[in-house]
Amino acid sequence: MIFLDAAATTPVRREALEAMWPYLSGEFGNPSSHHSLGEAAAAALAGARSGVAKVLNCRAGEVTFTSGGTEADNLAVKGIALARQAADPSLNRVVISAIEHPAVEESARYLERVHGFAVDVLAVDGEGLVSIDDLRAAIRPETALVSIMYANNEIGTIQPIAALATVSREHGVPFHTDAVQAAGWLPLDVKALGVDALSISGHKLGAPKGSGVLFTKGRLRLEPLVHGGGQERARRSGTENVAGAVALSTALRLSHAEQPEQAARVSALRNQFIDQILATVPDALLTGHRSQRLPSVASFCFPGTSGESVLLELERLGVVCSSGSACAAGSDGPSPVLVALGIAPETAQTAVRFSFTSTVTDAELEQAAVAVETAVGRVRNLAAPQPG
Amino acid sequence: MIFLDAAATTPVRREALEAMWPYLSGEFGNPSSHHSLGEAAAAALAGARSGVAKVLNCRAGEVTFTSGGTEADNLAVKGIALARQAADPSLNRVVISAIEHPAVEESARYLERVHGFAVDVLAVDGEGLVSIDDLRAAIRPETALVSIMYANNEIGTIQPIAALATVSREHGVPFHTDAVQAAGWLPLDVKALGVDALSISGHKLGAPKGSGVLFTKGRLRLEPLVHGGGQERARRSGTENVAGAVALSTALRLSHAEQPEQAARVSALRNQFIDQILATVPDALLTGHRSQRLPSVASFCFPGTSGESVLLELERLGVVCSSGSACAAGSDGPSPVLVALGIAPETAQTAVRFSFTSTVTDAELEQAAVAVETAVGRVRNLAAPQPG
Repeated sequence: MIFLDAAATTPVRREALEAMWPYLSGEFGNPSSHHSLGEAAAAALAGARSGVAKVLNCRAGEVTFTSGGTEADNLAVKGIALARQAADPSLNRVVISAIEHPAVEESARYLERVHGFAVDVLAVDGEGLVSIDDLRAAIRPETALVSIMYANNEIGTIQPIAALATVSREHGVPFHTDAVQAAGWLPLDVKALGVDALSISGHKLGAPKGSGVLFTKGRLRLEPLVHGGGQERARRSGTENVAGAVALSTALRLSHAEQPEQAARVSALRNQFIDQILATVPDALLTGHRSQRLPSVASFCFPGTSGESVLLELERLGVVCSSGSACAAGSDGPSPVLVALGIAPETAQTAVRFSFTSTVTDAELEQAAVAVETAVGRVRNLAAPQPG
Repeated sequence: MIFLDAAATTPVRREALEAMWPYLSGEFGNPSSHHSLGEAAAAALAGARSGVAKVLNCRAGEVTFTSGGTEADNLAVKGIALARQAADPSLNRVVISAIEHPAVEESARYLERVHGFAVDVLAVDGEGLVSIDDLRAAIRPETALVSIMYANNEIGTIQPIAALATVSREHGVPFHTDAVQAAGWLPLDVKALGVDALSISGHKLGAPKGSGVLFTKGRLRLEPLVHGGGQERARRSGTENVAGAVALSTALRLSHAEQPEQAARVSALRNQFIDQILATVPDALLTGHRSQRLPSVASFCFPGTSGESVLLELERLGVVCSSGSACAAGSDGPSPVLVALGIAPETAQTAVRFSFTSTVTDAELEQAAVAVETAVGRVRNLAAPQPG
């Protein structure tokens, strides 16, 4: 099997499993307990936090462990907006892009539905890019937060985060970015990016499901999502998932160390893969930006097919990928991300996303590209009117 | 080391680790992915859900996996109250007991602070019991939810949940119970209990930290805490912690199967331990109810000491326990639970809680009781005025 669905989830790295193992076995203490077992757990959690902070170039106290990327996004969007509104009731708007992950979009809609916020949505161009001028125009005195994703999960387009964050900062509005897909592939230095908040998911970069991180800058206040015993500096209550935090920190540090080399290597493979598909599959349409895209994502529409049929055919040929995002479970409509790019709904229904782990090889992608040509051909033949 | 702090957290059971292992290694799929890897993960999650449902005597669709007990409590209290208020704006009160875990209490305070609810707090008697008549008197037409814990985490007192839930049902108000400490030790049949919602934490019963369950009855609506891709029937978005859910389900099923026998065995050991402490430690005061208490919890005050000092001395003697709840990290004040029982704050500061796993032995508790006598004696000697 050739696994080309790493944007949905990744295998757990051996090093992450080894690092977390003690905290699933002998070192099972509760970090809040005042005895040696508890202190060992607290020390492990502190070590994990420092490791994350080093990668993000922030202080350990700015790192909050969550149960995943979705929770981190919810905590950022709702937590910052509600805490700012509590301090200044005139703040009642948030700005997001048209292609945010549902974790951000639905958090903004919750603010709208339950707390009376207005949501200002920035359009994207045909390649998925937000315009800096549009952001400047969208920010108003009532804007509590801007949240724009670092790299898109369906098309891989990378936003100019540092420039967008600068605009937000000039207006005194905190800037959050969902870096769930970017982590492991793009630089995560929060000072260089100039962001006030940034979300990461463990299972997208080689840690198990159930762990995530939210960076929040300095004393930026958050209304918690989860209240209780006051763990994580009262930003996120509940006994900490020590093993998950250790695994996330380990996987993040490893992927960060490998990032410059792997990003270059995999980008080159991705470009070959894209070129081969565009050359061999008639009418194949690359979605997203040609160069400003994640090294790990190649996404297409194949008009005259359905994405799901191509997916099934590819799996028969030994290639596992996705017809879009795994995060819109059960949704049968066309991808809102692709529609936002201006792609016709019937074309959007033909989308297939290939996303790579950092261990992907040239040979795998060669073989996958041939499989794509075969699969698309078969699906189109089946769809075509059969002779008498 | 004799581990008597199981109410803070428990070692992960070997069977739970073995059951979760495939989902940390080869079977790493995202349950929302439409391919064989995803389907295997979805099947594992469904199996875990059925296992939990069997123990709770409910339908699988009534089980929501969360990141832990605190999140489950938050989702129940905020989720039910806000969803009911959205349907009927006159509903703006919640009833809780005076000795709820902070996960419930702080959720109620959030509703008060941010959503304008009133919180009606039921007093408890000297042994920690809520009065059924008090509950009947507290419920008003505006009451959106009643939340009363099954068994207390500091003193082990068990509430008459079935009777309390009946009163709530008679008034048409949904009843939630925090069963985090009860799970593994008390019956969890939600039909017999008559509850509408019930929370469980994985790491209190032999699963790793980072998994929990919320049961909600039938079509009881919830406003989610975490919005996004619509996982868990849109009650809790975010990629599911498959391994954690499998481990929780495994540990819950095992502890449920062993429960009748272990509850009887450990209750008898607990009674011996309590008797021995009361007989050998002068002025020792048992906190909580003498018989209506968790098999696994023996809690005392030792006037003339400080709980923390006794704890340290006990650890030197090889016994690990707690001066109260591990969930109020960094809090130095007297336990609000003990104060609610009518215990003077200076006595409450001398609290020590012993809580047992299901593998605790007679010999361990014998040795621990001797250590308690020694430790309390030493701390009192140090605190007494020294001769000339």
